[in-house]
Amino acid sequence: MIVEKYGGTSVADVDKIKAIAKHVADIKKRGHDIVVVASAMGKTTNALIQLAKEVGYANNDREMDSLLSTGEQQTVTLLAMAIEALGVPAISLTGYQAGFITSNHHAHARIKDIDLTNLKQQLDQGKVVVVAGFQGATENGEITTLGRGGSDTTAVALAAKLGWNCYIYTDVDGVYTTDPRIYPQAKRLEEITYNEMMQMASLGSGVLETRCVEIASKYNIQLYLGRALKTDLSKGTFIMETKHLEDMPITGISVKEDYAIMRVLNIENDGIYLGNLFQLIADLNINIDTISQQISKDNKINFTFYCNEKQSDLILQNYKEEEFGYKIERILGFVKLSVVGVGISTHSGIASKTLNTLTKNGIKYYQITSSEISISLTIEKKDKEKAVQVLAQAFDL
Amino acid sequence: MIVEKYGGTSVADVDKIKAIAKHVADIKKRGHDIVVVASAMGKTTNALIQLAKEVGYANNDREMDSLLSTGEQQTVTLLAMAIEALGVPAISLTGYQAGFITSNHHAHARIKDIDLTNLKQQLDQGKVVVVAGFQGATENGEITTLGRGGSDTTAVALAAKLGWNCYIYTDVDGVYTTDPRIYPQAKRLEEITYNEMMQMASLGSGVLETRCVEIASKYNIQLYLGRALKTDLSKGTFIMETKHLEDMPITGISVKEDYAIMRVLNIENDGIYLGNLFQLIADLNINIDTISQQISKDNKINFTFYCNEKQSDLILQNYKEEEFGYKIERILGFVKLSVVGVGISTHSGIASKTLNTLTKNGIKYYQITSSEISISLTIEKKDKEKAVQVLAQAFDL
Repeated sequence: MIVEKYGGTSVADVDKIKAIAKHVADIKKRGHDIVVVASAMGKTTNALIQLAKEVGYANNDREMDSLLSTGEQQTVTLLAMAIEALGVPAISLTGYQAGFITSNHHAHARIKDIDLTNLKQQLDQGKVVVVAGFQGATENGEITTLGRGGSDTTAVALAAKLGWNCYIYTDVDGVYTTDPRIYPQAKRLEEITYNEMMQMASLGSGVLETRCVEIASKYNIQLYLGRALKTDLSKGTFIMETKHLEDMPITGISVKEDYAIMRVLNIENDGIYLGNLFQLIADLNINIDTISQQISKDNKINFTFYCNEKQSDLILQNYKEEEFGYKIERILGFVKLSVVGVGISTHSGIASKTLNTLTKNGIKYYQITSSEISISLTIEKKDKEKAVQVLAQAFDL
Repeated sequence: MIVEKYGGTSVADVDKIKAIAKHVADIKKRGHDIVVVASAMGKTTNALIQLAKEVGYANNDREMDSLLSTGEQQTVTLLAMAIEALGVPAISLTGYQAGFITSNHHAHARIKDIDLTNLKQQLDQGKVVVVAGFQGATENGEITTLGRGGSDTTAVALAAKLGWNCYIYTDVDGVYTTDPRIYPQAKRLEEITYNEMMQMASLGSGVLETRCVEIASKYNIQLYLGRALKTDLSKGTFIMETKHLEDMPITGISVKEDYAIMRVLNIENDGIYLGNLFQLIADLNINIDTISQQISKDNKINFTFYCNEKQSDLILQNYKEEEFGYKIERILGFVKLSVVGVGISTHSGIASKTLNTLTKNGIKYYQITSSEISISLTIEKKDKEKAVQVLAQAFDL
């Protein structure tokens, strides 16, 4: 009993859809129950966004969600038809039909619950169920999308609710110690723990969003990440509770792009301003990152946080200086670099080795934060490639 | 307070969508409430059907409905965005969101009811509501489509339920006395009665489906049919209860293409066979046409009916000779020609003039049927153009 998820490049054309249908039909014929989650075909989503821009789209996320959701709906109906053409009964379900009930945060909705009644009935009738990724609906039937990595989240949430394993098929071979485009000698990891993966994901490794790994971890669902239609599972990465391999102190280096520093200076230390600011940020459904504040001698606060550039746009659009009483400043041009590994808490010297390596190579770092299994630094964009390379060499990744 | 409907060619590209948005926004700015119904953009539907065929589609109408419904969903979100970009609040609604509850006959569902709660709330908030044509959903949330002329039906049904007038904008100038492609001298009608239009529609005039006119007539909704963005209403055709013009005996000639004769010979005259056959046809949601039966001297029945070729395919696929006990025969290659006009019942000699004109020109006719306002004849496909021309001349159309 498995959930498989195919990303946009894996279903980009008719031949690929037919190849996946064949693979899925074979699994079903061998007697397994299978739910398939699919994204929109190839460049469909970008083409729809382009059309929206051309007609004059202006942040109307409610309409954009309804527009974009058609992409996945098209893929899953075609995939269901292709599976049926091979003599295996199949049915497609939109997010709404699959029971995905979400919050009403258009463009980045959260899954509140999944009502599996319909999906289970279809499985009981012996059908392969093909579910549109990335989408759901509010209780009022408004179509929503789940934001970045939404289709992965659809798959993992379904697997969690069903108690099945989840195979995420994509156009990369698995999780690497760092981005192979920046550091070609990067190695593929055969296994990685949920915690490490969450750090890698939230810190920008790009292959899986944190929320997916979070759900998998919470429900103890075994995740597999690998290249579509490569059936040799030793060629991908398993994400699980504990690794079987001997721990390396450092699992990888991840990079989070397009970082903005947001800064407010000389705030009264009465908690009112920060309360209002956090309320605004929560209303915008933004998770900010790396908050820091210093209190000056005259009991004023200097407050700084990081977020990505798009989120910073959203904050600036909604922040009314005359209402909040303070000027908010934005500084662009940063990336956040993280060294991740379960060994960090048990192997001493990782932090100093990281900082020394950067300093030795003339790379300036700004904010530093750390967790049990990660050390993160903000550096300037221009230093990104060099920093990844010198750290990867230093930690033998 | 008006419902406007735009067909696929009227929304075929971004520029056309923006032009319609401008027109709609202007109407709204002048203080009118407006609901817009739109079809899928240009060739979208055909492109989706092509994709479905390529993945191996085999009469899976449930999946096809879900696939095709995405076309209209894309148009209406884009149109809503384009209207909002002009500073006029707008919202798109899918068939489901607009409250269209249908039967579960996929590919040719019937509207059971429209729950206007959501749509009215949006209108009350001062929004232009843009509704996806051609689609609805069953009570179980299964996506359905309404079949040929579905978007027109969406518009007229909404107008009926709201009690508003309905403007159908398309790529023709209005209703003609006969098809201008066959008879270039055909004249545009400024007005036509519901009854005449229903005959014209059901008999194949191609510009409006019978069901739309039926609904308009039942709820006494004034229909207008004209070219998109031509705002001079004297250039189209009004469809209404009674005409203001002096009646011409004949309003027009319509042609229904691709006719099949279905025939069963020597049936026992006990009603069992015909009961079973009509049950099958009803289950397939097919309206058959021009039924005739003759009883022979030995009390056996010869039974004949007409339907279009696609429907005849469907019947043959589902008709099991061993179950029904009789062989069903199909003869292809016919069209049905109809002379329509409220004058037929009051002007004598129309039938004889029709038949004489055909005979004089060497055109054979088969089945003849007539109503208060029409005379219909089945003729061979090859005679179509000639028959239309000689009749149009004979009746000065």
